[in-house]
Amino acid sequence: MTTAAVLGAGSWGTAFAKVLADAGTDVTMWARRPEVAESLSTHHRNPDYLSDIPLPPIAATHDPAVALAGADIVVLAVPSQSLRTNLTAWKGLIAPEATLVSLIKGVETGTLLRMSEVIGEVTGAAPERIAVLSGPNLAREVATCQPTATVIACADNERGVALQHAIATGYFRPYTNTDVIGCEIGGACKNVIALACGIASGMGLGDNSIASLITRGLAEIIRLGVAVGAEPATLAGLAGVGDLVATCNSSLSRNRSFGHVLGAGGSMEVAQQATHGQVAEGVKSCTSVRALAVRHDVEMPLTNAVHQVCHEGLSVREAVGNLLGRRIKPE
Amino acid sequence: MTTAAVLGAGSWGTAFAKVLADAGTDVTMWARRPEVAESLSTHHRNPDYLSDIPLPPIAATHDPAVALAGADIVVLAVPSQSLRTNLTAWKGLIAPEATLVSLIKGVETGTLLRMSEVIGEVTGAAPERIAVLSGPNLAREVATCQPTATVIACADNERGVALQHAIATGYFRPYTNTDVIGCEIGGACKNVIALACGIASGMGLGDNSIASLITRGLAEIIRLGVAVGAEPATLAGLAGVGDLVATCNSSLSRNRSFGHVLGAGGSMEVAQQATHGQVAEGVKSCTSVRALAVRHDVEMPLTNAVHQVCHEGLSVREAVGNLLGRRIKPE
Repeated sequence: MTTAAVLGAGSWGTAFAKVLADAGTDVTMWARRPEVAESLSTHHRNPDYLSDIPLPPIAATHDPAVALAGADIVVLAVPSQSLRTNLTAWKGLIAPEATLVSLIKGVETGTLLRMSEVIGEVTGAAPERIAVLSGPNLAREVATCQPTATVIACADNERGVALQHAIATGYFRPYTNTDVIGCEIGGACKNVIALACGIASGMGLGDNSIASLITRGLAEIIRLGVAVGAEPATLAGLAGVGDLVATCNSSLSRNRSFGHVLGAGGSMEVAQQATHGQVAEGVKSCTSVRALAVRHDVEMPLTNAVHQVCHEGLSVREAVGNLLGRRIKPE
Repeated sequence: MTTAAVLGAGSWGTAFAKVLADAGTDVTMWARRPEVAESLSTHHRNPDYLSDIPLPPIAATHDPAVALAGADIVVLAVPSQSLRTNLTAWKGLIAPEATLVSLIKGVETGTLLRMSEVIGEVTGAAPERIAVLSGPNLAREVATCQPTATVIACADNERGVALQHAIATGYFRPYTNTDVIGCEIGGACKNVIALACGIASGMGLGDNSIASLITRGLAEIIRLGVAVGAEPATLAGLAGVGDLVATCNSSLSRNRSFGHVLGAGGSMEVAQQATHGQVAEGVKSCTSVRALAVRHDVEMPLTNAVHQVCHEGLSVREAVGNLLGRRIKPE
């Protein structure tokens, strides 16, 4: 594996393209807007995300055929709810033996499919060709070469090891795992819990409360994961606890910041303005995660509370009261 | 259970005495120094710890016989390495059916016994009479009534439930568990990992690095726990992940602060001065935790690195390099 296409020029796609280049892999980025592709290939800057960070010389294009030509690693970094449409347009351009790597966190609305399932369904790729990358990887810190670790999960362990070597750098340490489901469930659920932690911190609650929420959140993520076939050990690892802790604690997390505004009394509109006009991923994903939990008869009180706040008009005070006022019981 | 003695007037003993009083339990604190007991009973303030926080009317004494008279809950909140000496002096004063509750985090130097084992050995109490309390419980936040949760572990579940009711308040939610070993291992190990996180933060590393350290720390805590008979689920819960996350992330944690000074280039002496002259608990406990790991043939690279920094003269830069430079491998 020596040639990668990174499809999507958001903050994580951009940072990950830098990781690939730093690891010695040949990278071409695809950006939806021609002016972004132009800036990336000419100035080695992304004007929309991490714009202050200089990137290594990376080729970029707004033509998916150019990006995908000769790529044996195809990295998907588009929004979760756009993946199906994008891939449907791209599938004829992907080499038949290429490895498809998902950086996308989420569960598809309506179908409740995980991203790797959407990839398999749209492209017809066997599970052995599909990998998932997840871990404590705040994009800005990765782009500034802060040391961290991640999980690369693939049902085909040999392919996972090959990928591991294509993305390992001094500051970015990938661990292999074959539990794709666990990695995806951890990634899909953590933004919802980060919203809850943001709400608590916006209400002035301290580190004990945040740690309690993270722990109870982890418990409900593990319950859901086990119900859909994940290994609990994956969720106790970098793609579970690791990603959850980084996202819930960092001021760099858009979900945490969005929740903080809500907790401090701001409306959904105010929160959206405060996070540069974008709705936090957890606002959208709480609906599909909750639906998946209902389908599998799993209790997820934190996810439910976030859904009530974001979509059913419950006040943050009532939501936190409901959570903390639950009856005392065994752990 | 209606009458408690809290033996020890450090920050956690003081905050927990307030929890008991707020839960409607009759409390008498024992303080080693008469002037501290005097201040507690007269002014309802602890002059040494959390001195700005007003306490409810709590009786206090420096006479252990007075504190223990009629107590059916005996809360032990002395330093881990003083417990054996203190209990040896007190054991004749403890009512034969009283429940002994340990708030103490640590492993006894030399014997490598957990605190509940020291309590059983010195007092002759059966395991059913000994309980352990642990969770994301930074003392200052508990004393200011920030909502949090905790675990009360006792081999006798019925006794655990009775204790749960004696300590539950609107802001302090105890969950019962019968895994005493798991709770104690989580508590004993977390200060060492918090030191490592402090070192990383003092070196300028970010939230991804801290989250990676917390996750790899949790993995080595679970390995040790399983080797000595703990349930992994306990360590994924409030007394494991919860306490670890709170301690590793909070500026209120003495261990995190101590490590931060070391990471920023300060000596052990400078770190000690910065934390009000006290050596952080993790500096002492890394020795006994490491010895326990060696006895059970468990690999604990983070604990080992902290020991090397604190006791073997390894520079923080070398220690972090060793940790982050480990070869890539399966998770």
